[in-house]
Amino acid sequence: MREVRRVLIANRGEIALRVVRACRLLGLHSIGIHSEADSGLAHLRLVDQALCIGPAAASRSYLDGDRVLRAAALTGADAIHPGYGFLSENADFADAVERAGLVLVGPSAQVMRLMGDKISAKHQMRLSGIPCLPGSDGALPEDLSQAQHLCDTIGYPLIVKAAGGGGGRGMRVVRQADMLRDAIETAREEAGRAFGNPAVYAERFLEHPRHVEIQVLADRIGNAVWLGARDCSVQRRHQKLIEEAPAIGIAPETIAELGTACARACRQMGYVGAGTFEFLYEDGTFSFIEMNTRLQVEHPVTEMTTGVDIVREQLLIAMGRPLSVTQDHVTTTGHAIECRINAEDPETFRPAPGRVRTWRAPGGPGVRVETHLYDGYVVPPHYDSLVAKLIVHGADRQDAMTRMRAALDEMQVSGIPTTAPLHRRLMDEPGFCAGGVSVHYLESLAREKSAS
Amino acid sequence: MREVRRVLIANRGEIALRVVRACRLLGLHSIGIHSEADSGLAHLRLVDQALCIGPAAASRSYLDGDRVLRAAALTGADAIHPGYGFLSENADFADAVERAGLVLVGPSAQVMRLMGDKISAKHQMRLSGIPCLPGSDGALPEDLSQAQHLCDTIGYPLIVKAAGGGGGRGMRVVRQADMLRDAIETAREEAGRAFGNPAVYAERFLEHPRHVEIQVLADRIGNAVWLGARDCSVQRRHQKLIEEAPAIGIAPETIAELGTACARACRQMGYVGAGTFEFLYEDGTFSFIEMNTRLQVEHPVTEMTTGVDIVREQLLIAMGRPLSVTQDHVTTTGHAIECRINAEDPETFRPAPGRVRTWRAPGGPGVRVETHLYDGYVVPPHYDSLVAKLIVHGADRQDAMTRMRAALDEMQVSGIPTTAPLHRRLMDEPGFCAGGVSVHYLESLAREKSAS
Repeated sequence: MREVRRVLIANRGEIALRVVRACRLLGLHSIGIHSEADSGLAHLRLVDQALCIGPAAASRSYLDGDRVLRAAALTGADAIHPGYGFLSENADFADAVERAGLVLVGPSAQVMRLMGDKISAKHQMRLSGIPCLPGSDGALPEDLSQAQHLCDTIGYPLIVKAAGGGGGRGMRVVRQADMLRDAIETAREEAGRAFGNPAVYAERFLEHPRHVEIQVLADRIGNAVWLGARDCSVQRRHQKLIEEAPAIGIAPETIAELGTACARACRQMGYVGAGTFEFLYEDGTFSFIEMNTRLQVEHPVTEMTTGVDIVREQLLIAMGRPLSVTQDHVTTTGHAIECRINAEDPETFRPAPGRVRTWRAPGGPGVRVETHLYDGYVVPPHYDSLVAKLIVHGADRQDAMTRMRAALDEMQVSGIPTTAPLHRRLMDEPGFCAGGVSVHYLESLAREKSAS
Repeated sequence: MREVRRVLIANRGEIALRVVRACRLLGLHSIGIHSEADSGLAHLRLVDQALCIGPAAASRSYLDGDRVLRAAALTGADAIHPGYGFLSENADFADAVERAGLVLVGPSAQVMRLMGDKISAKHQMRLSGIPCLPGSDGALPEDLSQAQHLCDTIGYPLIVKAAGGGGGRGMRVVRQADMLRDAIETAREEAGRAFGNPAVYAERFLEHPRHVEIQVLADRIGNAVWLGARDCSVQRRHQKLIEEAPAIGIAPETIAELGTACARACRQMGYVGAGTFEFLYEDGTFSFIEMNTRLQVEHPVTEMTTGVDIVREQLLIAMGRPLSVTQDHVTTTGHAIECRINAEDPETFRPAPGRVRTWRAPGGPGVRVETHLYDGYVVPPHYDSLVAKLIVHGADRQDAMTRMRAALDEMQVSGIPTTAPLHRRLMDEPGFCAGGVSVHYLESLAREKSAS
């Protein structure tokens, strides 16, 4: 494995800043790349070298693996940190990085592919004793009696889904066995029309699940640890808005059992780097959804509760070093909450790029802000609208919420609208305050408000 | 005791911001006061009410108790938080606050006086089993033989000091008994000339002591806890520049014994609020110097290692509430370091007020910045030159130093010079890196540098 001394950061915004800070802690030479629209990014002031790699469109810059690799060759990079999004879970890019003789800060292309395919991921999880949603694990048999028989073993309610596409088409929730045949038939018809493929599959349907995930770290030497659980149930259109650690209201032993299984799974599949096992949680049961083979946006809540610097560990792992923590030393203290502040209209959620007039970050004990904002920074319209992550740590969830309210009240950003007012309202919503809401919480809240 | 709902913050700069944040956490109405030179202070944007109380000169604003009390009356304040410096240890002001029917966030005037007088403080400490420097505890007898006898019981080396003044005049270090008489005589002569009072006293002299202090919190109900030790040995002209927690190289049991004695002393003297017992530490022995009956500049290193929000506790205590932690729940995690960033020429230490062009705070995990700086802020020439406190927390001292180096490198302030370059150099100095330096470290380092 190539010795890692020079790290190219193949990302932008707050996460690029986060990565360059970790590089500097370890004395690594850092290389920033950016699009033509992004020469004002905050992290470019901190990198040892910066390079413009292409036009504003992500497809011609951050998402263009060839350009990224050419930049790596040009700057003599040893390793590439992909951050999240963009190329971070692209197995073909991971292959190309390896072919170029470079180190990707992340797992192998093979493991990315294994986890990228839902069926093979689920199979791998079952091998490691990780609970999965019961389902047909492939298309339902053509024959309706056989399909019915299979579905009866899955149990109700279940959901019939088109194998060939998504977006709600070819999808039916079935609450009783006697509704199944009709549901399969109409779903097949719809799927055939929409995707040219009538195949449908079935899996158990959860009415009000929470989104709970386990953070893991695994090194090249075979060590793997899990760093507690996060609850990321407050979502809008499958996008997380608020994340917390730990996941409240779940017995620590239950989470420990799950975490241990996740660490085991890492060792069994030869996972390397930081990763996240995502689950739905309902009625005391966890069901695996997918594994994210990269750093998550919400990693700071885990850092705040465990004291482990996840990005530093990622880099150490890429350098071939052993993890700096063993499972025995991982402890969780207090409660952390993260609010994702997006440059969006807080009512319509439409991205709202523009020039930041003033930016005053909140502060004080237990408050951490991850942001690339500064006075005069122009938020370009081309990318994700995340502009700041506000993270607080408190003695318990109550204390953390109080600190988040104060931090949101203190935060001042003028020139662009942000989702901060929405977060502030949520911090007072009885459902959120009580804790343990389902992934449907935010949408049902929006429906309530619009009905009233 | 008056119910506390409205708190007047009788201070400025970073500590005023720190206090208003704590007020907001507790839902307290906050009142900011400022001098004519200080209308641009950051905390004035966050307070519920702001009032200009006088001209720039501190003696006619922040140090003028009458003006502060008039502002309190005018704004209906229930309590006054004095911060540090200014009126924070002024017993007459504490009396006046009480007479006005208001609550001072701090101990009673009586306790302030008890601790303000070195002799009575030392006496009180001895009663509580706190180790003190052996000394004459009052003027040496006129008669030289009697004085010699007393000094022999104190032991050598000792220091003879003028009772009537300081500044090095009338001061002699005596390393052997046979040097004593001469020393007393010349010291008396010098003292008489300089202060019109020939009286001198003696106490044991420590050659290379460290400055180690214990943070305490005590409520009105009789609970008192200690929150670990800080090392503040890196000083220049008795002004602390770098503070750390915990104090390394001292057995935890030794510190626990001392801390327990400090908490006991609080209960015995009816101490209320946050306070600090300051000690010299040499050859395994602690010697009490003084107690600071207020919040310290360096309180964040204790907050970072214990998770206790000291300013929030101060306010809760003033509200008559019990401490939110018991001694059993106080634990120390990792290591924290604070660098005091002053607006000074880093070579001459001369205050250098002026307009801040750009201010970019460092960030990332384990980094906390307490500052009132912002782009365009004008540092006035009238007050203390402290403009920011950079605090880092790491898994251990090594990790904390690494984070401090990175944070100092990342910090960007243009328009005014600061002491940041000095701090950055110190983070690489072998003596500081090894840890456990004495209070003379910085000055001997400066001598070395100027000699070489």
